[in-house]
Amino acid sequence: MKGKDFLWLADLESEEIGQMVRKARAMKDGATPKVMGGKVAALLFEKPSLRTRVSFEVGVKQMGGDCIYLSQSDVGLGTREPAEDVARVLDRLVDVIIARVFSHRSLEILAEYSTVPVVNALSDLAHPCQAVGDLLSMNERKGDLAGLNVAYVGDGNNIASSLAIGCASVGANFTVASPPAYKVPDVAWRVAERRAAEMETRLEWTEAPEAAVEGADVVYTDVWISMGDEHEADERRRIFTKYRVDGRLMERADGGAVFMHDMPAHRGEEVSEEMLDHPQSIVFHQAENRLHAQKAILAELLA
Amino acid sequence: MKGKDFLWLADLESEEIGQMVRKARAMKDGATPKVMGGKVAALLFEKPSLRTRVSFEVGVKQMGGDCIYLSQSDVGLGTREPAEDVARVLDRLVDVIIARVFSHRSLEILAEYSTVPVVNALSDLAHPCQAVGDLLSMNERKGDLAGLNVAYVGDGNNIASSLAIGCASVGANFTVASPPAYKVPDVAWRVAERRAAEMETRLEWTEAPEAAVEGADVVYTDVWISMGDEHEADERRRIFTKYRVDGRLMERADGGAVFMHDMPAHRGEEVSEEMLDHPQSIVFHQAENRLHAQKAILAELLA
Amino acid sequence: MKGKDFLWLADLESEEIGQMVRKARAMKDGATPKVMGGKVAALLFEKPSLRTRVSFEVGVKQMGGDCIYLSQSDVGLGTREPAEDVARVLDRLVDVIIARVFSHRSLEILAEYSTVPVVNALSDLAHPCQAVGDLLSMNERKGDLAGLNVAYVGDGNNIASSLAIGCASVGANFTVASPPAYKVPDVAWRVAERRAAEMETRLEWTEAPEAAVEGADVVYTDVWISMGDEHEADERRRIFTKYRVDGRLMERADGGAVFMHDMPAHRGEEVSEEMLDHPQSIVFHQAENRLHAQKAILAELLA
Repeated sequence: MKGKDFLWLADLESEEIGQMVRKARAMKDGATPKVMGGKVAALLFEKPSLRTRVSFEVGVKQMGGDCIYLSQSDVGLGTREPAEDVARVLDRLVDVIIARVFSHRSLEILAEYSTVPVVNALSDLAHPCQAVGDLLSMNERKGDLAGLNVAYVGDGNNIASSLAIGCASVGANFTVASPPAYKVPDVAWRVAERRAAEMETRLEWTEAPEAAVEGADVVYTDVWISMGDEHEADERRRIFTKYRVDGRLMERADGGAVFMHDMPAHRGEEVSEEMLDHPQSIVFHQAENRLHAQKAILAELLA
Repeated sequence: MKGKDFLWLADLESEEIGQMVRKARAMKDGATPKVMGGKVAALLFEKPSLRTRVSFEVGVKQMGGDCIYLSQSDVGLGTREPAEDVARVLDRLVDVIIARVFSHRSLEILAEYSTVPVVNALSDLAHPCQAVGDLLSMNERKGDLAGLNVAYVGDGNNIASSLAIGCASVGANFTVASPPAYKVPDVAWRVAERRAAEMETRLEWTEAPEAAVEGADVVYTDVWISMGDEHEADERRRIFTKYRVDGRLMERADGGAVFMHDMPAHRGEEVSEEMLDHPQSIVFHQAENRLHAQKAILAELLA
Repeated sequence: MKGKDFLWLADLESEEIGQMVRKARAMKDGATPKVMGGKVAALLFEKPSLRTRVSFEVGVKQMGGDCIYLSQSDVGLGTREPAEDVARVLDRLVDVIIARVFSHRSLEILAEYSTVPVVNALSDLAHPCQAVGDLLSMNERKGDLAGLNVAYVGDGNNIASSLAIGCASVGANFTVASPPAYKVPDVAWRVAERRAAEMETRLEWTEAPEAAVEGADVVYTDVWISMGDEHEADERRRIFTKYRVDGRLMERADGGAVFMHDMPAHRGEEVSEEMLDHPQSIVFHQAENRLHAQKAILAELLA
């Protein structure tokens, strides 16, 4: 790991990402080290969450530690108190800061002004814990990640950005289908491109969901309207209409393909009513793997 | 227990309810098994709570486990995410779901879509943990539950419904005094009637508080306006005026009768100013017994 | 300690305050007794908080116990339920009540209606845990507290009140500079005066910040607008303008003086932009010492 923090996948070298997935798999097989023994994690969440919060709290407890959950109304990050002051105070009291923020910049400030590890539990730029868990899910269901064909359909958001870097790093081919104005941002795409070049994998964008999904081993989608996008909800629903994943689109993928979604899902928007319960869906399996991935990440940071 | 869940008292056979009360008493005497060791309970609370939350959290810790408290703003049950998805995600991450919901239907969905036990920590239909604790309180103060005369005065709500089934199951006579339009709902009353018939106890409704309380061993009341009833507050205050429990009404009961209330209490509404501190009041004793009852229930579900 | 509770510094004799500071120092040196083993603390916070909450939760965990954090929306102290009922319920379920309240009166009611210790984690009258931590910080940085010259600049609020009693009790001289209408309230000042007389230290008020700071060993300030004062924010900003601590004012203090602030700080109001990062600032050191002070207080109350 490049530093003390885990803010996005670029903080790990390509080969370290594969190692982290293997480490997560070992955690799932029961090798939970008690690296959090006597330690406390601050969970600083500007945005509420079910999966992220519960998986982190359970993981920390399994590793022997304790969590203090702090919502935005508890902390007032950047409103009641600047992020740099919050960082320097928490730094004196806790052993790791796990933060879910609107702006990735807040994470960078927390990391800069503290000496304890800071973990990104979702920002506008990246969701790296989700991506490690997702690579674990792909590996469990589809085997070797190298050469796997992963198709992402929808908004080029923090999930798509993290998967692009993650897939390229482990040698999987990654194709994102999105409207031209909703591509993965350059800051993430350029990292993914460099890694794809090194690993000699394909990294592609297309406007057509059908083209992306054709023969894919993994079909992945995410909500069209993330928190913070609510003011453009109607426009997004119109623009993304043809990026819905349904059984018909799924049929274009490889026969053994899996369907993935990081949830919560909006049936009738990015997924049709039946997709979560589709025989090829592994979405709840994915949710569980957040736990194992995050334990691996914490073990690495606190070792 | 009929299944993996504890959603209302009908999930227990009549004799199992008496056993649960005895088990709760053993817990209070110090026999706390560490059945939650290394386990995590999700406390999913659509409605905030003092007693229920603190008694569950303390009980789980005493049994060796940990809790994650999730408020409605954390989860958005049925708004940000359907209850079935929440259930299937929590099912992967925690060992028991303790839920306080507006609609009993949400509990049924949580139970159906998970493999871990679901415990009702209050719904519009039932408050079974309260009832088990209340039976423990009656047993401690009044001895054998069989043949005891229990009078409930006020709204035929979830508390009245649970007490009706609970009392009938253990052989106590139960009389509810309520306005005709606020009787215990049929779904609960019919279960109570069947059990009263089996146990050969009295189960009665009357419009007159004085008639219900006459010679009673236990006088019980609850708020007139539960959460969700606020829009009809004025109407309810008018309709329930004569259902206030005060010292005068209490005098009609047996000389050794106890006064019970599950709290919070609204002095000047369902109780007069002095009732909580009345020499016959055991309301704080009742509050403590929530702890012991819930430990017995969790021990049964997780054994 | 005079009783079972720690509501303000007057609950400790003068010499006990010095002992508590020494005990806090021992805690910091690693002598953490596990007095909370198997015990649960209720954190009842009417006002949200970062430092207070995290330092208490971490301290309780280090002492072997667990916390249940209850916000005002969880409890409705005095709205959904009277403080006396909340006290009597918590008394049955937890081992200590740590409360952050708007009105000190609520603390007194909690203390009166419970048998477990009640700790003041901030009220309109006092912030005694902060003061013990601050005395520890002064002691660590400036040595013997007796004879130390402490200057407080700004609002004569709960912090100033607590420091006045605390400093007088340990033999430090204390000068507060505040607008005439914002002096330390009589109830606290009179206690401080008595203790200052016993210890033969100076206890003074002045309108002029420059006079207070002249030659001081410690320069301390706090926000101008505490929670609850928001409606008079503009007026307060006008009245307190000349009570800002900046580098120039700091130069009037002793060359080795330290700058203190209990935070959160409002740059451009009570402190200039640079003060928290000023070479003489020990504000983050102070934040950490909350932890050690509170552990000493809990150890004393629960021994």
